Amino acid sequence: MKIISGGVCAAQGFTANGIHCGIRKNRVKRDLALIYSSVPASAAAVYTLNLVKGAPITVTKAHLLGGIAQAAICNSGNANTCNYNGIEIAEETCSILSAELGIPADNIIVASTGVIGELMDIAPFRSGIPSLVAGLSADGSDSAAEGIMTTDTVKKEIAIEFTLGGKTCRMGGIAKGSGMIHPNMATMLVFITTDAAISPAMLQKALSGDVKSTFNMLSVDGDTSTNDMVSVMANGLAGNEIITDEGEDFTAFMAALNTVTVNLCRMIAADGEGATKMLECIVSGAYDIDTARTVAKSVVCSSLVKAAMFGADANWGRILCAIGYSGADVDVSKVDVSFRSAGGMVTLCKNGSGVPFSEEEAKAVLLEKEIEVLVSIGDGDISAKAWGCDLTYDYVKINGDYRT
Amino acid sequence: MKIISGGVCAAQGFTANGIHCGIRKNRVKRDLALIYSSVPASAAAVYTLNLVKGAPITVTKAHLLGGIAQAAICNSGNANTCNYNGIEIAEETCSILSAELGIPADNIIVASTGVIGELMDIAPFRSGIPSLVAGLSADGSDSAAEGIMTTDTVKKEIAIEFTLGGKTCRMGGIAKGSGMIHPNMATMLVFITTDAAISPAMLQKALSGDVKSTFNMLSVDGDTSTNDMVSVMANGLAGNEIITDEGEDFTAFMAALNTVTVNLCRMIAADGEGATKMLECIVSGAYDIDTARTVAKSVVCSSLVKAAMFGADANWGRILCAIGYSGADVDVSKVDVSFRSAGGMVTLCKNGSGVPFSEEEAKAVLLEKEIEVLVSIGDGDISAKAWGCDLTYDYVKINGDYRT
Repeated sequence: MKIISGGVCAAQGFTANGIHCGIRKNRVKRDLALIYSSVPASAAAVYTLNLVKGAPITVTKAHLLGGIAQAAICNSGNANTCNYNGIEIAEETCSILSAELGIPADNIIVASTGVIGELMDIAPFRSGIPSLVAGLSADGSDSAAEGIMTTDTVKKEIAIEFTLGGKTCRMGGIAKGSGMIHPNMATMLVFITTDAAISPAMLQKALSGDVKSTFNMLSVDGDTSTNDMVSVMANGLAGNEIITDEGEDFTAFMAALNTVTVNLCRMIAADGEGATKMLECIVSGAYDIDTARTVAKSVVCSSLVKAAMFGADANWGRILCAIGYSGADVDVSKVDVSFRSAGGMVTLCKNGSGVPFSEEEAKAVLLEKEIEVLVSIGDGDISAKAWGCDLTYDYVKINGDYRT
Repeated sequence: MKIISGGVCAAQGFTANGIHCGIRKNRVKRDLALIYSSVPASAAAVYTLNLVKGAPITVTKAHLLGGIAQAAICNSGNANTCNYNGIEIAEETCSILSAELGIPADNIIVASTGVIGELMDIAPFRSGIPSLVAGLSADGSDSAAEGIMTTDTVKKEIAIEFTLGGKTCRMGGIAKGSGMIHPNMATMLVFITTDAAISPAMLQKALSGDVKSTFNMLSVDGDTSTNDMVSVMANGLAGNEIITDEGEDFTAFMAALNTVTVNLCRMIAADGEGATKMLECIVSGAYDIDTARTVAKSVVCSSLVKAAMFGADANWGRILCAIGYSGADVDVSKVDVSFRSAGGMVTLCKNGSGVPFSEEEAKAVLLEKEIEVLVSIGDGDISAKAWGCDLTYDYVKINGDYRT
């Protein structure tokens, strides 16, 4: 398996584009993105569990009942959520795109991201979609990745090459996500493409299994968005024997998918709103996976841990505190905690009590951009990871005045 | 019922004091507080449910098994938590105080608040307790309230006068709490005194019932502390007929207790770390109390709602989002949302969708110091309140470098 360039256009048959069509009125930034497969693809998606759901979530769910998609369209600047006519707008978007691409409307994945509760105007879609389609290109992943950004400061793109049954396959993804990041059984807006051949059912199985250890273990601010969605389109152009059940090829496909999703998770965490640091909490020694995940996520979600990381303050008691209220059944007298980064490693707590450490060494570890919080529970041999970021002045600044 | 002065010394027989004994080395601030009743009192307490518990919690729980206490001692500057010898230190503190006051050590409530995981030295207690006791006075509530403060910017004190069976009773409380505030079935450090006569069992019943709608509905940052505790001492000197079961007097006592605890909750929320505004979410129209409480607490806990309040930004979609992920079973198409304050009232959402509103009017409402978020669910007639505060630059500043 190797990392390659090309993002969502790395896999055969996929083109993409991103344009400014005018959904964002206050600045000229690409606000509409399209990904297109030259042939119909197996498709799978997972969605937010927030009871308040964006209208595009409802429309996409209905479209993917057949497990087939050929295009994904996504706007930024307006979440099309809590609007009385949201479903109508999302359906009309698909209908306009369907006519332009010459594909059935229900083979289209539709998504929106931005402010909740502002009416969405169909006019920019109507005027923009023809040039969006005309500009589709194999070099278009970058502009599509830009088109879905909101408060993101960098575009998030990844592609890999891997082998299934002797055939070279490719998989790529783009993601947006910076605030309102605390996916629950689903995730942020992520679009993944691959030319591997896999049945819709197995594709859904692979995706649903993967998100438990990837996007569901990611938090920027504890707020589960109303518009979270990850979708995958697999168009089969790599020519591998189609995956229709578990086995060696499915395992290889899962490994490829996990490489793409973990990379995107890390990119989203590192670009959390206002973040200066990416946090990875690695919990080991748990007796089951739920315990390991619950503890890891509680640590990366703690406002106090996040603020301490911003200040490079080795206030490890806050980590013990977050483990203690996580809800996991942990014997705190067996817990060890260390920090690790490019700046070194320092152990702060053994068996639930503090041990002497050098404040200077701890500072050197915590001043790095990527910090690992290592928590050992001492009850078994199961591990889990969670990703987050620090809590900074800029998070408050960005979110104190998001709409204006 | 009326509000009076005197704090924890308002009730007959109670004296208090607070001194600087040297637990805080870096600044001269009172760091040790004592509350004393001239006669043994019925006592009750509720404690944090964090699995990581401060050593004083363990010691106090054991002491209150008999339902009697005569003194409460509390230091700030060190939480005495995650220390190998924490229990020993807490017990020695009680033993020194027991000798000085001439009361049994197990009639003492002991509490600590401050940094987790730093070894606690018994020396400042040993040298400080004699002058702490010598200075006990009926005017001492202020200095005791100061003695328990950590990042608090104001001391939190309240006292009321009420009547039980024709006898005038008094009740007062002090509280500390600013960060790591997200009590779970228990609360922050709160000490309440009353001269009402009530059995230990009924006192515990009153307190355990009250916290469900008061301290458990309070959040500053989502982090449940390891040292949370509310205790009440009722010494009976008011001379009312002792309350030993439910009835009119118990109801009157519960109302008095609720007045004290709601006032302290509001003070803690308003003085949340870095806070510029107090938020009160009032959920009405729920079909049961759990739903109303879950929704109210989810709204005041949302980092995005809190940051929007800091910016006086009427970004009501974030409130819908927080309701949607709260876990409560709510029909979002029936939800209405309004903001209300001394600056007026503005409705932003009816039946789950946005309604036109004046940004100028909304700004006027949100620029006030106390903001009510009114959420109507439309499913019944049960209400609940939760308290919180805004998320500000100063929260990050305070917690980026708490220890130094």
